[in-house]
Amino acid sequence: MKAIILAIGDELISGQTVDTNSAYLSRRLAERGVETVEHRTVGDDKERIASAIAEAAGRVEIVVVSGGLGPTEDDLTRQAMADAMGCELQLNAECLADIEEFFRLRNRKMSPPNRAQAMIPTSAEPMRNKLGTAPGIAARIGAAQVFVVPGVPAEMKWMYDNCIAPRLPAGEGVILHHVVHTFGEGESDVGAKIADLMKRGSEPTVGTTVAAGMVSVRIISRGRTTEDARLQADLTVKTLYERLGNLIVGKGDATMASAAGELLRKRGQTLATAESCTGGLIGEMVTSVSGSSDYYLGGFVTYSNRLKRDLLGVSEELLARHGAVSEQVAIAMAEGCRQKLGSDWAIGVTGIAGPAGGSAEKPVGLVYVALAGPEGTQVFRYVFPGARDMVRLRSALAALNCLRLALLR
Amino acid sequence: MKAIILAIGDELISGQTVDTNSAYLSRRLAERGVETVEHRTVGDDKERIASAIAEAAGRVEIVVVSGGLGPTEDDLTRQAMADAMGCELQLNAECLADIEEFFRLRNRKMSPPNRAQAMIPTSAEPMRNKLGTAPGIAARIGAAQVFVVPGVPAEMKWMYDNCIAPRLPAGEGVILHHVVHTFGEGESDVGAKIADLMKRGSEPTVGTTVAAGMVSVRIISRGRTTEDARLQADLTVKTLYERLGNLIVGKGDATMASAAGELLRKRGQTLATAESCTGGLIGEMVTSVSGSSDYYLGGFVTYSNRLKRDLLGVSEELLARHGAVSEQVAIAMAEGCRQKLGSDWAIGVTGIAGPAGGSAEKPVGLVYVALAGPEGTQVFRYVFPGARDMVRLRSALAALNCLRLALLR
Repeated sequence: MKAIILAIGDELISGQTVDTNSAYLSRRLAERGVETVEHRTVGDDKERIASAIAEAAGRVEIVVVSGGLGPTEDDLTRQAMADAMGCELQLNAECLADIEEFFRLRNRKMSPPNRAQAMIPTSAEPMRNKLGTAPGIAARIGAAQVFVVPGVPAEMKWMYDNCIAPRLPAGEGVILHHVVHTFGEGESDVGAKIADLMKRGSEPTVGTTVAAGMVSVRIISRGRTTEDARLQADLTVKTLYERLGNLIVGKGDATMASAAGELLRKRGQTLATAESCTGGLIGEMVTSVSGSSDYYLGGFVTYSNRLKRDLLGVSEELLARHGAVSEQVAIAMAEGCRQKLGSDWAIGVTGIAGPAGGSAEKPVGLVYVALAGPEGTQVFRYVFPGARDMVRLRSALAALNCLRLALLR
Repeated sequence: MKAIILAIGDELISGQTVDTNSAYLSRRLAERGVETVEHRTVGDDKERIASAIAEAAGRVEIVVVSGGLGPTEDDLTRQAMADAMGCELQLNAECLADIEEFFRLRNRKMSPPNRAQAMIPTSAEPMRNKLGTAPGIAARIGAAQVFVVPGVPAEMKWMYDNCIAPRLPAGEGVILHHVVHTFGEGESDVGAKIADLMKRGSEPTVGTTVAAGMVSVRIISRGRTTEDARLQADLTVKTLYERLGNLIVGKGDATMASAAGELLRKRGQTLATAESCTGGLIGEMVTSVSGSSDYYLGGFVTYSNRLKRDLLGVSEELLARHGAVSEQVAIAMAEGCRQKLGSDWAIGVTGIAGPAGGSAEKPVGLVYVALAGPEGTQVFRYVFPGARDMVRLRSALAALNCLRLALLR
């Protein structure tokens, strides 16, 4: 079974926003054995949207359209869909009630344009939206099933799971995507360790990607049944673990923070943080995991020297002698934090995120990470490439990775 | 003048890689007055690539194709381009010399498949590549100029600047993109206030989008010269400020944190933070702005009740009587933080980010934000929809927005 995915929006074709919905939908459809053959993006133009829908429906069995369901005048996908179907829009009472309820629950007044969002093509079925005001649309055009979903990624994802996936026909084969996340070596080094698995034409397909500071290994396995495809993938994942060992942080939805958090939970130990250049990012990552209150106490953002001294007890003399960005201050931050808060582990991070503040001796990207634990304190020095956000991200990941590796020992 | 941008690659239509080239090319073409009307992505399939090129060339004046110029068997764009042109490929001696030179300079042996990269359609012109081994292709198909560039973003960008831009016809106009970010009202409410500007067919084109918790108003202005286009945009931006007032956070690259930070800097005042459910996100946002150390002291991540008590002086009795997620505790956090750190302003945030921890009385998404300042303390109650990350993001934005509005008074 084949699919075409359409994305709608002037902000997309003008390049102001990068379309990530289409890639997401392709991956999800592949899980069901549906192969995407084309992505197409058109602007907020009723005729172009309608003809793109009609054309796609003439070529493949599944068409998914995202975007253009908002309440404003430039949201034209509803009308275009009706045009492509050759019918009118009509007010759907259930959808209107959902929208009214949405505003009522939030103590907000529904504005008149939102009423337009309850308009659905006469011969289509609404897909109710629990996260936002725009219902989706499910309809048949010729031999194709066409699904229209909101462009807001969270709503699109929710609607895929709850409205599209249940409506998809049972497929003849299964394509599974697996991903294993690594940290600590570059993409080419990881690639060199698994070059044989990455050969073109081998099954499963194995490739590497870099995103948000992590190198991920992606596995696409095919099978007649889910069990077939899973068996293929499991063998490959096993090989990856043999080759890559502790470089592997986790699989699937795992993040650096969830991996380190799981290890803390298993040991029944606690963590606290003292952040300078990361400004709260490590705490943010740790607490992005639901249930992290079981092992994360909290900590300090000591962006100024005064706070390093007043809150963490870093001595004035240490700051003056070595500077705020130094091995010694990182250690004093981690140990001060651990002592003040009585945690099992404490992370201290200080560095120069840039673009300003660097020198020949202490360049932008220089970061010290200290980890104080039950058996003493370790300190690590890094010089990270990249812009401010990248230096901060890598610092936070490196700090949590030090903790993860210490907990694996 | 209109353009269609094609992206080629199985990794794109399977969703393993998000296509960012097309958005980049759209933005760059717009600078030259070229309006992109469609993005289209097809896989590594010779017939599909050829028909996509031919079809696009029949519809617009400019076609840019990225990807599929590599040395391996699944790189088929060269042959597809020749097919779309109705001619053969032939070895280009200059390109072959470039490729040989590329390997020689890097002390690497050229592998035989790389020779294929020097094959160019007979009636096309090669675009030489200084960053990689794949030359681009420039050709005319019917009334359209077609440019084929490598999919590697750095090579694509270099080739746009050095090979495509110089070959573009002198445009008859300029297209400028502006964006104004708002916070505090939903997309439909913002849209209702500027409905007349958003009418289809009006100039400049005005539209709204929602991303990362903010509603942004996008303006596309056209003019014969840059000055013309800018004047159009400026008038519209002025109207937006009149209509939307303090809802407007900033323009262009401005963020909530940079806007609040600028106001602190102007007043010479300082900020500190006490975060519970946001876990450090507010600090992270504030410090994502270079130079934020001028006004941000730092703060506390008090994820546990014990830390709210020990670090911020929130009384045991208050926590027991009202619970950690309460107006009273948010106020005590902000005031405790301001007092301990001696900042002009302090933010205290406590809430239930979910998915666990909600109750009928205190649902998931309930968040209290307190702002302690020179003239006293304000507290705000929110119930945010969405998943954990969304609740946290909205909490952080709402907190910084309270500060921003207080600083505007």
